[in-house]
Amino acid sequence: MAAVPSLDLVAGVLAGETRAIARLLTRAEAADDEGKPALEVIFRHAGRAHVIGITGVPGSGKSTLVAKLAAEIRRTGRRVAIVAIDPSSPFSGGAILGDRIRMGDVARDPGVFVRSMATHGAIGGLAPGTLDAVDILDAAGFEAVVIETVGVGQDEVDVARAAHTTVVVSSPGLGDDIQAIKAGILEIADIHVVGKSDRPDADRTAGDLKAMLALGVPLERSGSWRAPVLKICALSGDGVAILRETIDGHRAALEESGAIVARRAEINERRLILASEEAVRKAFSRQRDGRVAGILQELNARTIGPHTAARRLLEKLHEEDHR
Amino acid sequence: MAAVPSLDLVAGVLAGETRAIARLLTRAEAADDEGKPALEVIFRHAGRAHVIGITGVPGSGKSTLVAKLAAEIRRTGRRVAIVAIDPSSPFSGGAILGDRIRMGDVARDPGVFVRSMATHGAIGGLAPGTLDAVDILDAAGFEAVVIETVGVGQDEVDVARAAHTTVVVSSPGLGDDIQAIKAGILEIADIHVVGKSDRPDADRTAGDLKAMLALGVPLERSGSWRAPVLKICALSGDGVAILRETIDGHRAALEESGAIVARRAEINERRLILASEEAVRKAFSRQRDGRVAGILQELNARTIGPHTAARRLLEKLHEEDHR
Repeated sequence: MAAVPSLDLVAGVLAGETRAIARLLTRAEAADDEGKPALEVIFRHAGRAHVIGITGVPGSGKSTLVAKLAAEIRRTGRRVAIVAIDPSSPFSGGAILGDRIRMGDVARDPGVFVRSMATHGAIGGLAPGTLDAVDILDAAGFEAVVIETVGVGQDEVDVARAAHTTVVVSSPGLGDDIQAIKAGILEIADIHVVGKSDRPDADRTAGDLKAMLALGVPLERSGSWRAPVLKICALSGDGVAILRETIDGHRAALEESGAIVARRAEINERRLILASEEAVRKAFSRQRDGRVAGILQELNARTIGPHTAARRLLEKLHEEDHR
Repeated sequence: MAAVPSLDLVAGVLAGETRAIARLLTRAEAADDEGKPALEVIFRHAGRAHVIGITGVPGSGKSTLVAKLAAEIRRTGRRVAIVAIDPSSPFSGGAILGDRIRMGDVARDPGVFVRSMATHGAIGGLAPGTLDAVDILDAAGFEAVVIETVGVGQDEVDVARAAHTTVVVSSPGLGDDIQAIKAGILEIADIHVVGKSDRPDADRTAGDLKAMLALGVPLERSGSWRAPVLKICALSGDGVAILRETIDGHRAALEESGAIVARRAEINERRLILASEEAVRKAFSRQRDGRVAGILQELNARTIGPHTAARRLLEKLHEEDHR
């Protein structure tokens, strides 16, 4: 297949052409320099979609919930895109798991676009690539973009923070051990969901969550919004409509209070940091055997430390840009 | 408490004084600029310890295994330090979980040092701070430093890669969903452990792992070493001595083949990248309302994209360094 200069894909993406969208998404995922000019143009055309982050540990019923939620959003007439970056998600069709759960009707609706992002082997490229993917789907006219993540690790938190509305899914019966790895992400939830509400221990989990919230999980970016705890059974669909309404209500509250401006600025700030880190990593890779080799030698000899080495590296990379 | 200039702590650390070690560890965890000069000196004195990464999902019995392994290493006469960065680890005494499991004898042995690193709210500072902590314990004379991580997310992978010997713990009965989030880390295992070997399904999990390895999980940094699969019951201690022998055997194999040189270089390269990213983030924070404000304004107006914004940011940060 001949390579299409990625700038040529932009018009197709803006016109909502599936093929162009898919190809530019592949470019975004590769995170190579060739895709950057197109992604810059896409960014300038993005900013209209409601970006919804759904995060929770594997086994929480999150993937089924995302499929049902997408169908529910679709029912309101909006086009919806799903970006799945949970390696265990059925959307990402993990090689280990196979597709044990199918998306069902949602996958056959042309108003729904599903894209999985590989996490395997990605060294720090996950977050920038995923956020570029969200821009592409946004610019392509999807009114809602749902990001599904596993909700652990810094990259995942970065992605979840890139949403306007972040939903954190907990599950009854998964055990405190598993729930606890989510502790770092609880504070960025705008909406809490207890999945599998048909289970007898769902009430206890919801109660525990409410107690924890009452104890004061820091409400770092909530403004006057208080994160509700919803019980949902994704399998039967019970509560999914209420979740959709609550998500829309959160967005409306952000718009009404003006908090949306601060949240957008926060998201852009984070993107700038992620893009800068990516630029440093790439410049490093290019110069590993060149300008950077001497720094690495000194580091290996332990005649300098990482902090000094980093300052010298940034200096060298600057020289590279201005040679 | 009056602040102690961190350089004053270096002599104490090198002499193995517990109080100095603890205070410099706190500095490393804070990842502030004041600690950097001391950490630079520490880095130059580190490099002797055998750094062992133990990683696996919560519920795999990993924390108990770490405690037993530490006691086993201690039995060979070496001093051992544990750095725990699993938020659900009993070592880190999570506020949610409380200390349900106790370390037992190990915690009362002066030849064993245990330190937990908080992950809660750490934005990208986890990996550099943890690796500085390893240096401190290394320079303080601990012959073995064990890093315990939860084994998901990029930061965790970065930390696991900083070990000379990486042990990945799987668990029977945790379910494919949970195991799969580890897929990204399986390939960096030098040794696989199936915990809870007293369970009837342990054999099946060990068999599945061996089959997966035979199918060809990429052996990216193993050289001629083939990662074995060990069944261990941490609770009873069955198999822990064999694990200790295998860990020592791996280190000996690295030394014998000379692969240790490449592995050390790889670890240092990663540290340089992490330190550089940290430097960029910090410079950004310092200049958010200064040199960087205009870039953020343009990004918020979507007149430039993240890639362009990142290039301008790095330019501004360079100017800051040379004003």
